[in-house]
Amino acid sequence: MKFCGACGAPVQVRIPPMDDRPRHVCDACGAIHYQNPKLVVGCIPEWETRILLCRRAIEPRHGLWTLPAGFMEMGETAAQAAARETEEEAHARVEILGLYSVFSLPAISQVYVLLRGRLLDLDFGPGPESLEVRLFEEREIPWDRLAFEAVRETLRRYYEDRRAGAYGIHLADIVLPAW
Amino acid sequence: MKFCGACGAPVQVRIPPMDDRPRHVCDACGAIHYQNPKLVVGCIPEWETRILLCRRAIEPRHGLWTLPAGFMEMGETAAQAAARETEEEAHARVEILGLYSVFSLPAISQVYVLLRGRLLDLDFGPGPESLEVRLFEEREIPWDRLAFEAVRETLRRYYEDRRAGAYGIHLADIVLPAW
Repeated sequence: MKFCGACGAPVQVRIPPMDDRPRHVCDACGAIHYQNPKLVVGCIPEWETRILLCRRAIEPRHGLWTLPAGFMEMGETAAQAAARETEEEAHARVEILGLYSVFSLPAISQVYVLLRGRLLDLDFGPGPESLEVRLFEEREIPWDRLAFEAVRETLRRYYEDRRAGAYGIHLADIVLPAW
Repeated sequence: MKFCGACGAPVQVRIPPMDDRPRHVCDACGAIHYQNPKLVVGCIPEWETRILLCRRAIEPRHGLWTLPAGFMEMGETAAQAAARETEEEAHARVEILGLYSVFSLPAISQVYVLLRGRLLDLDFGPGPESLEVRLFEEREIPWDRLAFEAVRETLRRYYEDRRAGAYGIHLADIVLPAW
């Protein structure tokens, strides 16, 4: 950020009064432009013993597999965001079952919130951001072709929970790698 | 937002190609300025049967009681943000015990993430954003002088869980009122 979104003047980076970290500050109009971590919200869509994954048609990680997930939008709830991403990326409808994981990724200032969902039918297919969408049994999961570390760690815990007989809710940090 | 933070030219509000909702778009440099919900992260600081609340010295809700909480900062984990807010607002140190609630507030595009924490000692006191900090037994909670609906709903569930003998993890939406 080089210019003030409110007045168009150049911004400075410095610590405002009563604050303790550098911000983008506009000396012309007094605006302080805060930057904060972004929420990535997604879904683990379940159909009996299988889950739905999407193969990405966009960068980053074009061609790799992921759970339906994306940046939460203004005015949404987390459950709405998870259902919307599932509809957009996999043209699939889910009933949200509950929270599964909250992962902080401080290296890229993101927080992943993943919810479990039950697919309402098998009428799904790739949206514009997906090359391919399909259901996977645990033994079929493409562990070496997953797009994001947060998805890998979520699925690792998901199958561990399933073997233990109960789904937990997981708070964790993913420090490295960023993706 | 009226001007482009990247180049200073005026921005337009319209739906970009391949998108489905209005964004702030710069026709001069091509930048798209996305706006996304903010994460408010906080702590339920516990000392034996009591919890710590802060009375706000700032707007909004000056003079009302709240849990230590605030906007998550870039480069933080949720646990770090919860501990930092507790240190800033109550000059108190906590060991983070785990996730307690994830509440969506779509009316103000915020997601509250509250964690349980164990106070490490009783050496606490008001930070610059607090008028007063103290420990409360359940019967002492100032229900009619709480600052935010997300805090009220969190505490309501917290004591309900405690009576039931186990803390759950709560995903919910707070639709109205916004505060």
